[in-house]
Amino acid sequence: MHHTVGKQSIQFSAAPHIVSAASVAGKKEGEGPLGEKFDLVCENPMFGEDSWEKAESTLQKEALQTALGKAKLLPSEIRYLFGGDLLGQLIATSFGVADMNIPMFGLYGACSTCGESLALAAMAVSAGYADYAAAITSSHFASAEKQFRFPLDYGNQRPLAATWTVTGSGAFILAGKGGRARITGVTPGKVVDYGVKDSMNMGACMAPAACDTIYQNLMDFNRQPEDYDKIITGDLGYVGQRIVIDLLKEKGFDISGVHMDCGIEIYDQETQDTHAGGSGCGCSAVTLAAHILPEIEKGSWKRVLFVPTGALLSTVSFNEGRSVPGIAHGVVIEHC
Amino acid sequence: MHHTVGKQSIQFSAAPHIVSAASVAGKKEGEGPLGEKFDLVCENPMFGEDSWEKAESTLQKEALQTALGKAKLLPSEIRYLFGGDLLGQLIATSFGVADMNIPMFGLYGACSTCGESLALAAMAVSAGYADYAAAITSSHFASAEKQFRFPLDYGNQRPLAATWTVTGSGAFILAGKGGRARITGVTPGKVVDYGVKDSMNMGACMAPAACDTIYQNLMDFNRQPEDYDKIITGDLGYVGQRIVIDLLKEKGFDISGVHMDCGIEIYDQETQDTHAGGSGCGCSAVTLAAHILPEIEKGSWKRVLFVPTGALLSTVSFNEGRSVPGIAHGVVIEHC
Repeated sequence: MHHTVGKQSIQFSAAPHIVSAASVAGKKEGEGPLGEKFDLVCENPMFGEDSWEKAESTLQKEALQTALGKAKLLPSEIRYLFGGDLLGQLIATSFGVADMNIPMFGLYGACSTCGESLALAAMAVSAGYADYAAAITSSHFASAEKQFRFPLDYGNQRPLAATWTVTGSGAFILAGKGGRARITGVTPGKVVDYGVKDSMNMGACMAPAACDTIYQNLMDFNRQPEDYDKIITGDLGYVGQRIVIDLLKEKGFDISGVHMDCGIEIYDQETQDTHAGGSGCGCSAVTLAAHILPEIEKGSWKRVLFVPTGALLSTVSFNEGRSVPGIAHGVVIEHC
Repeated sequence: MHHTVGKQSIQFSAAPHIVSAASVAGKKEGEGPLGEKFDLVCENPMFGEDSWEKAESTLQKEALQTALGKAKLLPSEIRYLFGGDLLGQLIATSFGVADMNIPMFGLYGACSTCGESLALAAMAVSAGYADYAAAITSSHFASAEKQFRFPLDYGNQRPLAATWTVTGSGAFILAGKGGRARITGVTPGKVVDYGVKDSMNMGACMAPAACDTIYQNLMDFNRQPEDYDKIITGDLGYVGQRIVIDLLKEKGFDISGVHMDCGIEIYDQETQDTHAGGSGCGCSAVTLAAHILPEIEKGSWKRVLFVPTGALLSTVSFNEGRSVPGIAHGVVIEHC
């Protein structure tokens, strides 16, 4: 039997395993602290295509193919794919995975989508709906700037609270057994709106949602922060990190000793001019595939709470003066 | 045990029940053939708000509240919500359900999202991950025109193959028992791209995906079209209906005797000037809630294959000359 625990979490009785993972990243990410760990770094930001959106689709395709290759699986062996990206109407994903001929659930959780896709894939595998399921997400600096901010040619100034959208895609194959890491539980998140309206300060928009999900996870599983070797948010960056630590302190939990943020890990703030850190669906996805999972597989981290964070806005909602609510999905990953 | 059947379907051993459903629609839909069946028809297309997007959020909120009221449930009793809309970054849904404080999975499958949300909600309930789950989708004529086509003030001419986006939202509450209809199986769909590039002829873009999913459903469950009282597509309209019937004939199945399309049912083509029919996430959702489910609950239809259909495009992909791939998710709903 599957167990619902507490208010909003699931503890899997049959914990699905992450049997393979792949990361494909861009040049800037390749020059960062995690550069050597990515499966593939592409020097050409167009990935051989003629538009940024096609480039992002190619990123996804490469990531999925690499993950399939590592698991020695054919696309036809993947029963369901859970995927998404940041672009309006998920065009990077739709065009990226179409050729694979895998039944697909399109997801949108802004930069939290990596968590959403892993949670749903784990739920499907654990319930016996799929022998193999894939979770895939991506972001691309240029397609995201075009979608959300300014065309690159405009050369706008970036405030210091702004994050840098990661060019990258992470793909994960889940199954009932195999591999040295498994998903033992999930805490799907709520939309949390603190009324922040600054789209150039995503960290502040998303930190309350991260706090909400981490708090609920600790309560639902009856754990303390130290019960995790790491509590890893997706892309809060330096600004959001301070906020989530403060907010959780107010609720009685000190995560400062175990907190890590993918947006902080992926770039060298001193030399790479990335201001508050990295962001985007790809940020948490490639960091999980290239850095976090290997640590769990080695056993240097036994149990990790992975919490990709998303800022829910569009240019339409922003231009209409709406706030930027956040959402964060928690995934518990353990060594096995 | 849950059963995977055939290549891409699930047959639930514990079939989740649809314990309540609600439909909220706009004035034009209220004047159509299904007008009297909607729970709520709002004469004011702004729904009391000051933007089309906020109006669509209000539609969703009203639909969910109505469905909760019918089931005598509080929002806090819904463990997970599966929802989406057509707008970039799902802003109608994010802002619509934020106040409800329900953990949310954001979904995008274009106009197939009603099927995607019902499939995932059914999978969650049947697996024991949730006592109650909600599935909600919406579309709004004006927010969709603004997102995908032209501002309303521009007064563009609509070709005859064009569909009319339905202003409406449908909400469904699923649980282990209760009610007279249950979801006995699902066939999640693949992205199918026939290379059609005409965004004013969505029916032609989506028909191949509908064909693929219906064909796979019949094969996986080893059924003939007559094993269903109705096979109901989401919004193929008059143009797409002819295509899907022809395509399935080529594959050896004649669905002409049992086929119905929500986009054809919802408007009176003669008097309402809606050309090829209705479309949008809301089209299949309100037709299911107001028309299809009551027929199943009464027992006049014993078993229905409900197949919402989506056209995967954005203004960016369209302007870059890309094709419009389709996707369709199949949901088997039976009287009980």
